[in-house]
Amino acid sequence: MRSVIPDYLTEALGAVESDLSGELAGYIPELAAADPERLGAAFATVQGEVYGAGDIDTEFTIQSISKPFAYALALADRGFAPVLAKVGVEPSGEAFNQISLESDTGRPLNPMINAGAITTHALAGAAGLTPAERVERVVDGLSAFAGRRLRMDEAVCASEMRHAHRNLAIAHMLRGHDILTEDPRTVVDGYTRQCSVLVTARDLAMMAATLANRGVHPLSGERVVPEPVVRQVLSVMFTCGMYDAAGDWATQVGIPAKSGVAGGLIGALPGQIGIATFSPRLDPHGNSVRGVSLFERFSSDMGMHLMGAPATARAVVRSHHVVGDGPNALRVLQLQGGIGFTGAEQVVREAVEVAPTEARVALDLTLVHSIDDVARRMLLEVARRLTLDGHEVYLVDPETILPDPDPGDGGRVTVVATVEQAVPSPPAVARDRNQPRPHGT
Amino acid sequence: MRSVIPDYLTEALGAVESDLSGELAGYIPELAAADPERLGAAFATVQGEVYGAGDIDTEFTIQSISKPFAYALALADRGFAPVLAKVGVEPSGEAFNQISLESDTGRPLNPMINAGAITTHALAGAAGLTPAERVERVVDGLSAFAGRRLRMDEAVCASEMRHAHRNLAIAHMLRGHDILTEDPRTVVDGYTRQCSVLVTARDLAMMAATLANRGVHPLSGERVVPEPVVRQVLSVMFTCGMYDAAGDWATQVGIPAKSGVAGGLIGALPGQIGIATFSPRLDPHGNSVRGVSLFERFSSDMGMHLMGAPATARAVVRSHHVVGDGPNALRVLQLQGGIGFTGAEQVVREAVEVAPTEARVALDLTLVHSIDDVARRMLLEVARRLTLDGHEVYLVDPETILPDPDPGDGGRVTVVATVEQAVPSPPAVARDRNQPRPHGT
Amino acid sequence: MRSVIPDYLTEALGAVESDLSGELAGYIPELAAADPERLGAAFATVQGEVYGAGDIDTEFTIQSISKPFAYALALADRGFAPVLAKVGVEPSGEAFNQISLESDTGRPLNPMINAGAITTHALAGAAGLTPAERVERVVDGLSAFAGRRLRMDEAVCASEMRHAHRNLAIAHMLRGHDILTEDPRTVVDGYTRQCSVLVTARDLAMMAATLANRGVHPLSGERVVPEPVVRQVLSVMFTCGMYDAAGDWATQVGIPAKSGVAGGLIGALPGQIGIATFSPRLDPHGNSVRGVSLFERFSSDMGMHLMGAPATARAVVRSHHVVGDGPNALRVLQLQGGIGFTGAEQVVREAVEVAPTEARVALDLTLVHSIDDVARRMLLEVARRLTLDGHEVYLVDPETILPDPDPGDGGRVTVVATVEQAVPSPPAVARDRNQPRPHGT
Amino acid sequence: MRSVIPDYLTEALGAVESDLSGELAGYIPELAAADPERLGAAFATVQGEVYGAGDIDTEFTIQSISKPFAYALALADRGFAPVLAKVGVEPSGEAFNQISLESDTGRPLNPMINAGAITTHALAGAAGLTPAERVERVVDGLSAFAGRRLRMDEAVCASEMRHAHRNLAIAHMLRGHDILTEDPRTVVDGYTRQCSVLVTARDLAMMAATLANRGVHPLSGERVVPEPVVRQVLSVMFTCGMYDAAGDWATQVGIPAKSGVAGGLIGALPGQIGIATFSPRLDPHGNSVRGVSLFERFSSDMGMHLMGAPATARAVVRSHHVVGDGPNALRVLQLQGGIGFTGAEQVVREAVEVAPTEARVALDLTLVHSIDDVARRMLLEVARRLTLDGHEVYLVDPETILPDPDPGDGGRVTVVATVEQAVPSPPAVARDRNQPRPHGT
Repeated sequence: MRSVIPDYLTEALGAVESDLSGELAGYIPELAAADPERLGAAFATVQGEVYGAGDIDTEFTIQSISKPFAYALALADRGFAPVLAKVGVEPSGEAFNQISLESDTGRPLNPMINAGAITTHALAGAAGLTPAERVERVVDGLSAFAGRRLRMDEAVCASEMRHAHRNLAIAHMLRGHDILTEDPRTVVDGYTRQCSVLVTARDLAMMAATLANRGVHPLSGERVVPEPVVRQVLSVMFTCGMYDAAGDWATQVGIPAKSGVAGGLIGALPGQIGIATFSPRLDPHGNSVRGVSLFERFSSDMGMHLMGAPATARAVVRSHHVVGDGPNALRVLQLQGGIGFTGAEQVVREAVEVAPTEARVALDLTLVHSIDDVARRMLLEVARRLTLDGHEVYLVDPETILPDPDPGDGGRVTVVATVEQAVPSPPAVARDRNQPRPHGT
Repeated sequence: MRSVIPDYLTEALGAVESDLSGELAGYIPELAAADPERLGAAFATVQGEVYGAGDIDTEFTIQSISKPFAYALALADRGFAPVLAKVGVEPSGEAFNQISLESDTGRPLNPMINAGAITTHALAGAAGLTPAERVERVVDGLSAFAGRRLRMDEAVCASEMRHAHRNLAIAHMLRGHDILTEDPRTVVDGYTRQCSVLVTARDLAMMAATLANRGVHPLSGERVVPEPVVRQVLSVMFTCGMYDAAGDWATQVGIPAKSGVAGGLIGALPGQIGIATFSPRLDPHGNSVRGVSLFERFSSDMGMHLMGAPATARAVVRSHHVVGDGPNALRVLQLQGGIGFTGAEQVVREAVEVAPTEARVALDLTLVHSIDDVARRMLLEVARRLTLDGHEVYLVDPETILPDPDPGDGGRVTVVATVEQAVPSPPAVARDRNQPRPHGT
Repeated sequence: MRSVIPDYLTEALGAVESDLSGELAGYIPELAAADPERLGAAFATVQGEVYGAGDIDTEFTIQSISKPFAYALALADRGFAPVLAKVGVEPSGEAFNQISLESDTGRPLNPMINAGAITTHALAGAAGLTPAERVERVVDGLSAFAGRRLRMDEAVCASEMRHAHRNLAIAHMLRGHDILTEDPRTVVDGYTRQCSVLVTARDLAMMAATLANRGVHPLSGERVVPEPVVRQVLSVMFTCGMYDAAGDWATQVGIPAKSGVAGGLIGALPGQIGIATFSPRLDPHGNSVRGVSLFERFSSDMGMHLMGAPATARAVVRSHHVVGDGPNALRVLQLQGGIGFTGAEQVVREAVEVAPTEARVALDLTLVHSIDDVARRMLLEVARRLTLDGHEVYLVDPETILPDPDPGDGGRVTVVATVEQAVPSPPAVARDRNQPRPHGT
Repeated sequence: MRSVIPDYLTEALGAVESDLSGELAGYIPELAAADPERLGAAFATVQGEVYGAGDIDTEFTIQSISKPFAYALALADRGFAPVLAKVGVEPSGEAFNQISLESDTGRPLNPMINAGAITTHALAGAAGLTPAERVERVVDGLSAFAGRRLRMDEAVCASEMRHAHRNLAIAHMLRGHDILTEDPRTVVDGYTRQCSVLVTARDLAMMAATLANRGVHPLSGERVVPEPVVRQVLSVMFTCGMYDAAGDWATQVGIPAKSGVAGGLIGALPGQIGIATFSPRLDPHGNSVRGVSLFERFSSDMGMHLMGAPATARAVVRSHHVVGDGPNALRVLQLQGGIGFTGAEQVVREAVEVAPTEARVALDLTLVHSIDDVARRMLLEVARRLTLDGHEVYLVDPETILPDPDPGDGGRVTVVATVEQAVPSPPAVARDRNQPRPHGT
């Protein structure tokens, strides 16, 4: 059987292929000489599977798509406070090359506009690095996101430096505000190198998937940046990633995204996939024309809009029933699915409403496939309160889906592998090592 | 047992109670006379459960929190195109009372600033309504979101009209650009009435929960606005809801939200809950000081940041194994959990990798609790391709979690209630009405 | 003999007549219906002579040309401080209908933009006037500048009020900042009436001549506004009168000026003439196309650029010589022309350099036609110092060109009608009433 | 006798001396180390006389006061069109270091803000100069304005270059717009050198006097720049010279002016004097605190406000009377004073009103001290028309105040030295070389 996904991608490319509108970035000859017909799209899942169609192995320069990744590196290398002190997170409502500094402090409004991205470059790596070491750190970091060693296009880089007047202006302005503390030309040079890193749509999809996968590369398993950094980066991509079209994108596509002037475009859907497209003709905002169309199609076809609620989950409490009778009766709440705050809330509610009269109560987690931290704490609190109400509480958790099950503060649970183990057995049966383990005080 | 959630909320209120910073809105006497010590917080789940602590039944005027709801009503009543033609969706990076019109068209940048909200009010209801009928439509709509009949604070309304100079200025400007086509004073009067609707934190939580629940009121079951409208509204709340602090909020809290000058603050987490807080002292952005603190706490404590990936789901393919042997052998792919695109992708991958040699293949959905539309189509395409590869394909779907299971175009599946039903039974057994139903061509 | 000036004006009109570029103001039907071919120009001298060619007796609405005159009335009626507290004097670099308020105070940047002009209207007349009385005051004032009773075009006024959205917006904004303290609509109504006053090019030339003549109407001799008010008004016309083309105008024409949307354009050259043109087609700045051409021509042909230095004056000290001899010798400094600071400086210098040894010194003012205040004080100081040096000092001033000739503080001068009177005459001649009058201590 | 002017200046300095408000420019150590108590003021007349009091021979760097002079040099060296194509003339309403470029072209709004001044520096000298030659040209030019060889303060220059971040930013921005076509750092370096030229208050007064004297140095007699350039420069100084306080200055002082951050301040009154003050403490606009006070005092005390009309001139037509009788009767119009357009208008009017019946008419210019070009043409036209009306026309012009007296086109005048010469003398008197000369056709 052939996978259906590449077929879907091929079909999507076919649907946008005839759109020849837009213009190549023309400010340097190298970009103006790109093949405008190139077209590719790739999906990379958080498990590391990559699907693609079209030109997904053609190299082009990463350009502004490097911005969210360099921002991630700066946050990881320096911490949040020093970076936020120098670069804001507010949408500017302006085009990419507007200066957009806060009038009093000179702080760039966000890291997606050039002023913010130049500042961010200067904050990548440890504080004492030489400019060359910092560029090395950034290329290493981008490579870690991609999962392969990336290299630079020296010709594009040199050409961009010759036309970097506006970025040099911005950098001198930042220097005047002491947002930059180094020679502006050196920083712009480093930033231009960062933008000249060569990637393919396949690379970009994998880089986005690393963001979607909480900062861990899906294949290498390397944690490239910490999880809070990813949250910060995706938030900023969502509100500022598409420049002055950010609101259109947020409403119509609804995926944190970033575009580059060489024709690349990425999106990252937390917990799900990274997406990349490549088509060099740009709209007036500087975003790839066919790339934008493809993302609109993907978002709509696959229900990927972040503000679209997931299909209503089946009730987390699958059933409650009593096993055994008399003094041995066990009230069982059978849970299912993935449990977050809202699922845990259902369990809490059920526990309150049922108000079990049985001496023993079991939370059966056999059909539960995930529990997040707040849900874990809420379930343990339910267990603790049931204990305090005089119940003997069991967790049926054959796969230890709920780690460290100590409710604390007067609570006590016994973890068992099956409901049956929570039902009192006849006396004198020898306990083996699979016997119920009591947890708690 | 007592529910843990009100206790959590009480604890959260206690943590922020001592923060006396900020100022009451002072521009009209009625708001300046509010009790600054009021403090309340409420959660409303998409199932309609409400938890609260503090002053959740105190009435106050809804003010700007009416904006997203009125925007939803306008989109629902007029359709997207006429509304988007008059109000944009781009963050303005400016304070709430900035005029922020597009320089050429006079179109307000977004519906969360006053210029956009005044325009939005004029677009609520059908095109031919009188001003009074339009106000009635808006109050009805807000009431439907809340699930109870809301009323207006006439004293606040009259007082605000006496101080509505800036809104009148904005409205005349909009009239000059033909964005408004009616008498500006009449529209501002209607908008001021909209802002003077009285709500409690409990109401607001339920209104937000209606957004979180795809536009359907959790208790009444009334569809207040269509689902695409909700997606649009939540997107705009995420990027523009907190004015010039939108980026801070998006990164630190990560919940679509809206604040009002009387001290209310709401957030809506798609598919999960609506949250509301009430505390009248405002920060310089015009947002409730303690409300912002509470939301930061909620987001962090309960993992509610939209850009935080949900806990990695257990593999959707729980197992694959063969039942029976010889010519009767059945390859079973046992699926579990909720299946969206990324889950379906795993099934596709598994089907490709396993490349079953058995004549019969079953997709066992018994432990699956939801399948979204794209996943349904992908699973049916897998079934179709397996059919074309010569397999006999079964769906084990006791609860009809996958509706209308026709793969089309040469595919054919047989739906059964148990795996056993897919294993050939001895001949001469009478078929009853629970017998496998074949679907497809 | 026929005067050469109307011929010059006729020739000038002929030179611009074929320029059909520009557009009629189209925002109200009454202005759009004007005859675009109308063309006229008038000069009015500070002596009240009027020269004209073309349509100088066609009435049209004064529109923004009323702004400097209403500003003059407000300054005269309320004093400088209250007016400056509410309207600034800085060029805005923006178009006429930009709001251009100071961000903190809401004070309009200058009285030539609409925001400033609306505020100025509200400041005309005494503080307690009713709106109708204030309009009456403004029309009276404009009439006094023109020297005839002006009336209003009620049709244009009514039509403008129906399209006054932007001005109403501005007025409400000003009301919100407490720059206006009355009902905004009432003020805009009054301002619109002010703009609807009907004038001819002849009227406008005379109004400008009243400014050029230090605020005194050249024919009626009525002082319409005080001299410092005129200085203020002309300064603001020079820097702000032509909106965003102010700099072009200042460099190329160099005459304080103001244009109106009905096609009028005025200029006032201090001490010389008022100029008005009328041609309804406007350039994109809102200034009359042919009016601008005419002013460029006038400025260039007649050397009227304010920054063009007047032809170097002949030496103010025409000669110095000695009359008589021996102890009767009289040193005469014969002065000529108009004497201001720079002329007086020459006299001072001459007096220092000559260092007269004669006992008697005369300043002969017979050929002097004017002395300004600073020159008067300087000449008297020269006289005082000569007195203190032991000289007997005479002023030969047959026409009392130097009033109140008391040098004070030890100085003493004797005023005589002829040089001869300063030469000691033989004794025993009877003194008549024309005998020398001694002044000073 | 001692001159009164230095005494006046000394008194004026005394009046402002106690004002210690304001701050030294602090952005470079060299300026911050200046002696804040320095105080001086100088007047230089268009005849080259210099009066001063206080520290008028202390050297300090010229800074922004170089801007109008460099602008004059650029206009003189390149012509108007190339300079206007790169630098506008509109007031920006902004502070000196705002970028203030036209949004579409990148053209700086005016040459008084840094962006315009940097561009202007690049336009000084002929097109092909090296950067060093251009600096040399500028220093030569500034020296010609001053009338002595100026030199540079290398320490200040080097220090400013180390802190020139903002100017470098501006220059790179200008380079990006192709307003600059050279290496931005090189241009900023040259501009910084221009600003580092050392001057005294005495120098500055003389430089301003050169502007007041139509571009000719009062003492050396060297024409430094052409007259139209001076008009352009003074206009721009009037509207843009005092940055965002330009309107205040224009209304209160009314003298074209320019300030420098080292404490200098100049004003130039066309045809009269150049003024300079020196006091290093600056107000928030960057203008010398005590310098501004001194100029307000000078303007008020000496009636130097450009918008203040000069004292009403005595009638230009002193008398008209008839000399001789019968066929020899001569109608004499005796003129006086300086005659410009408005004076000539009086002559025209008189000639029309008098409508002389005598065969002979004389315009007696004996008491006239100047006639500008338009007046000359108007008087000749009067003469021509009188000729055509059948009169014999005489100009009594003993000092040839009216050059080239040919009325052309049918007109004919006879120039005589005295009125008597125009009265027919008895026949047979031998004509000498002083006999009347007929002019015209």
